[in-house]
Amino acid sequence: MLYLDHAATTPVRPEALAAMLPYLTDRFGNPSSHHTVGEAAAAALEDARRRVATVLGMRAGDIVFTAGGTEADNLAIKGMAIGAALRRGTPVHLITTPIEHEAVLASCEYLERVHGYAVTRVPVDGDGRVDPDAVAAAIRPDTALVTIGYANNEIGTVQDVAALARVTAAGGVPLHLDAVQAAGWLPLQGTGADALSIAGHKIGAPQGTGVLAVRGRLPLEPLLHGGGQERDRRSGTENVAGAIAFATALELAEAERAEAATYVAALSDDFITRVLAQVPTARLTGHPIHRLPGTASFTFAGTSGEAVLLELERRGVVSSSGSACAAGSDEPSHVLLALGIPPEVAQTSVRFSFGHALRGDLSPVADAVAAAVATVGG
Amino acid sequence: MLYLDHAATTPVRPEALAAMLPYLTDRFGNPSSHHTVGEAAAAALEDARRRVATVLGMRAGDIVFTAGGTEADNLAIKGMAIGAALRRGTPVHLITTPIEHEAVLASCEYLERVHGYAVTRVPVDGDGRVDPDAVAAAIRPDTALVTIGYANNEIGTVQDVAALARVTAAGGVPLHLDAVQAAGWLPLQGTGADALSIAGHKIGAPQGTGVLAVRGRLPLEPLLHGGGQERDRRSGTENVAGAIAFATALELAEAERAEAATYVAALSDDFITRVLAQVPTARLTGHPIHRLPGTASFTFAGTSGEAVLLELERRGVVSSSGSACAAGSDEPSHVLLALGIPPEVAQTSVRFSFGHALRGDLSPVADAVAAAVATVGG
Repeated sequence: MLYLDHAATTPVRPEALAAMLPYLTDRFGNPSSHHTVGEAAAAALEDARRRVATVLGMRAGDIVFTAGGTEADNLAIKGMAIGAALRRGTPVHLITTPIEHEAVLASCEYLERVHGYAVTRVPVDGDGRVDPDAVAAAIRPDTALVTIGYANNEIGTVQDVAALARVTAAGGVPLHLDAVQAAGWLPLQGTGADALSIAGHKIGAPQGTGVLAVRGRLPLEPLLHGGGQERDRRSGTENVAGAIAFATALELAEAERAEAATYVAALSDDFITRVLAQVPTARLTGHPIHRLPGTASFTFAGTSGEAVLLELERRGVVSSSGSACAAGSDEPSHVLLALGIPPEVAQTSVRFSFGHALRGDLSPVADAVAAAVATVGG
Repeated sequence: MLYLDHAATTPVRPEALAAMLPYLTDRFGNPSSHHTVGEAAAAALEDARRRVATVLGMRAGDIVFTAGGTEADNLAIKGMAIGAALRRGTPVHLITTPIEHEAVLASCEYLERVHGYAVTRVPVDGDGRVDPDAVAAAIRPDTALVTIGYANNEIGTVQDVAALARVTAAGGVPLHLDAVQAAGWLPLQGTGADALSIAGHKIGAPQGTGVLAVRGRLPLEPLLHGGGQERDRRSGTENVAGAIAFATALELAEAERAEAATYVAALSDDFITRVLAQVPTARLTGHPIHRLPGTASFTFAGTSGEAVLLELERRGVVSSSGSACAAGSDEPSHVLLALGIPPEVAQTSVRFSFGHALRGDLSPVADAVAAAVATVGG
């Protein structure tokens, strides 16, 4: 079986598991406890925090450990918007795009529905890129946050984050990047973002781990209120073992990043070329150049995407119709619709997402795709 | 070293760790993925959910896996209050007590501060018990939730939950019980509560795991919006390994519960008697009878609680001044103040909390307490 759904979740790195195990056995303390057992846990947690901060080029105090990417996105968006609204004493305005992950879109929708905030969704082009000038034009005096995905989880399109950072800085508005899919593939330092979300289980840490890196000067209303952990930005006893695994996985992912991105991009480009050549109905989705090295997504008009996936799995290739978070839905992908792809074509999507460890030749996979599409009649 | 701070965090049970390890290695799938790797994870998650539901006497669909007790409390309180307010189209009213865990108090305070909801905090008596009739009297037409701790985390006082369930049912108001400290010591079935919070790391599961059990008919606005996991009540890729460890630990805790409660209560009662006899300034806090078997907390008027803790630790006994979540604060405990204990006495508190595995005689610990208090001059 060839697992090509790393954008959904990655295997846990053995080094991350090994690093966390002592904190699931002997070193079980609560970091808030003022005794040797607790202090050992607190020291380990702070070491993990420093290591994450180093990889991200931020201060340790900017790192908030969360239970995953969805919580990090929710905390960034609701936390910064509500924090700004409370400071200003008035509802605020947010800017995003229509192709964001459900965690971003649904957080924005919550703020509209429950808090009466305003949200502008700046359209993207047919490749999934948002125009930074259009974002700049959408900034209003009451805009409290721009939240955009660094790289899209379905199609792999990478945004021009340098330009986005320029226009948001010029507008005096904080920029949050959902970097859940970018982590491990794209530079996490020097993006110019004020806040960055990362999910552990996309970079070889366990499920249930994540980080929101957010500059400390920004007002941030917590999502989880209570004992005041994480500098009062995320209450609840910290998952010490998870934080250590996250730090370990992030360091390894970053150390491998440049080489893996180059190597995997070459394999992926070859795979894309082969699929497009072998399957007449195949169309690549997302940007042809500004795309994640590890993501290759297609539509196969005239087929059923689910049938192609099943055929591929019979041939030993595990892939996905798109976001795992939306895999239960019968609706066509909101991302593909926002690119202007018709619903009946959007429903034929298949995403292949590769890990750092991908090696060798993907031509057998391209052959399997061609055979699967032919079998289901595309 | 004798670790007597189980109310802060417990060691992970080896069985829980063993049960989760396969899901941190080979079985790494995302439960939302529609392929064999994902479906194996989804099946394991649903099995864990059924096992938790069985222990709690609820339906599998009522179980929401969270990242801990604080998240479970936040979800219960904010989720049920905001859910009710949206349904009614008007702000709502909540009832709690002044001795709740910070996660409960701060969630209520957030709803007051940001959403404009009203909160009544019904006083407790000198032993930390709330009068169910006083709760009944506080119910108003706009009351959406009563949230009370089953057993207090600092003093171990157990509420009359049967009477609380009667008055809330009579008033047509849902009852949420923070059962974080009760789990493993008190019956979790048949409480009459509509929602119940449990933290994994208090019952031998890892940090970063928890459950909110909430009857499905109740409107619940999520805290974490996104991909719609957990029946759209808690978005985010599920921590499969954590859920399995939680289910395993909860089953073991429940299986041991009756015997452990009896055995540990006897040891604890003897310990309390010895401390009160040997230390003239010692005063037991919390209810003399309606108390957790595993919690013995005292004040030692005229000493410094922190100095007593340090002396105890030098003698090999690890204990706490009270809630770990508040251990960083110099303020006297809000729980002890609410019992009518003067601030200068409240600051001398020391809590001993025992695990299920406690065996043997605690008289050396009582001797150590007497020696520690004498050393620091109490």
